[in-house]
Amino acid sequence: MQSQQVQQILDVAGDLFFELGFWNAKVSEIAARSEISTASIYKAFESKDALFRAVLAWGIEKLKILAKPPIEAGDPINQLLQASDRYHALCDSALFRDLIRAPIEHNNIPLMFRRSMCRQIRSALEQLCMPPLQACAEVGLLDRQQIKEAFRLLSAYIEHQTIWYGLLVSPASKNSGAREQIADEAVRITLSAYPPGGVVASGPYGGAAQSVVATQPPPPRAPED
Amino acid sequence: MQSQQVQQILDVAGDLFFELGFWNAKVSEIAARSEISTASIYKAFESKDALFRAVLAWGIEKLKILAKPPIEAGDPINQLLQASDRYHALCDSALFRDLIRAPIEHNNIPLMFRRSMCRQIRSALEQLCMPPLQACAEVGLLDRQQIKEAFRLLSAYIEHQTIWYGLLVSPASKNSGAREQIADEAVRITLSAYPPGGVVASGPYGGAAQSVVATQPPPPRAPED
Repeated sequence: MQSQQVQQILDVAGDLFFELGFWNAKVSEIAARSEISTASIYKAFESKDALFRAVLAWGIEKLKILAKPPIEAGDPINQLLQASDRYHALCDSALFRDLIRAPIEHNNIPLMFRRSMCRQIRSALEQLCMPPLQACAEVGLLDRQQIKEAFRLLSAYIEHQTIWYGLLVSPASKNSGAREQIADEAVRITLSAYPPGGVVASGPYGGAAQSVVATQPPPPRAPED
Repeated sequence: MQSQQVQQILDVAGDLFFELGFWNAKVSEIAARSEISTASIYKAFESKDALFRAVLAWGIEKLKILAKPPIEAGDPINQLLQASDRYHALCDSALFRDLIRAPIEHNNIPLMFRRSMCRQIRSALEQLCMPPLQACAEVGLLDRQQIKEAFRLLSAYIEHQTIWYGLLVSPASKNSGAREQIADEAVRITLSAYPPGGVVASGPYGGAAQSVVATQPPPPRAPED
């Protein structure tokens, strides 16, 4: 089978699997819609399960391409804002949602395959964010010892905006209007949580977390108004 | 039917639904394990779908009880650390995971019901964290105008640690060993992101996010070693 035909089948199969769920999507329907025989599909993919896994692998390839950042010089914060904005757009996309939902919906996916999916999705997102985070560290905007931690925080903040509503309630996220604002806040939070050279933020909670428990809080301040 | 019997059925049904999935769990098996007739179950719950929704509602009630903080005076940061630690433990629990997975696995759950589940879970988590966040704001450790934003960040950070691995790969989270450390870091990040009185952190990225894009980054620093 030509690789173009394979891609055609994977696209059609993806549409049906994700719309109807694994069990309701019929291979005969996938065959009809891709104008190919059911027998040829089984010849190429062996089983419906294998076809499903191929759809997921294909989806991850697409995600990797979407997450590949253009080489861009200039202001590191702008780079990071752009990456965060793109990150949020990715999380908000049907592709991302389908890739995340699939292993939950279809519990036949082997553990090894789930692990590999998880790893690949995370590494695509890393590929998107690590270069601008590194650029920020280079110019002294971020602790260069804590780039991984900064990525974790950025991820957590951005993904949280879409995962709850998008995954649990409705595929159409209600937050898409606020995307820029979310990317902006994610960058602000990340850079203030991991300032350069381990220099902690000023203010009453400046120290390392471990030491805070032992510290007495400052006395209550007078009301400001 | 006595309410004790109803609870017994809901517990047994929950075990089976969550272990086998909605479609593989049989009402006859639920009946057998709770030592009650299938007819009585259908009399009490009308349908398998209604039984499933009752299981979820019962799970949410349990979550609410677990998330109810004991009234505790003392150091607000300690209160917040304890709440964060308990939050993480909740996210790491089978109950939480099952409640999150259910609407994804079983797409027959009506949208209204999903929304209500989502709202109730979030409000249980708010109930756990808002009092200590407010206590921190009272003593000037947190911007009292941004308690909601602080809760969002705390949530995002804590949930992100369990949701990826726990939801997508394996029900047994691999991170449970680091729980205290995660709660600690969540508190540190939250308090440094929203300092009191809108006083922003010192350092090159001290200003409001919106203004940063226009700001030139400082010149690269000399290497420290």
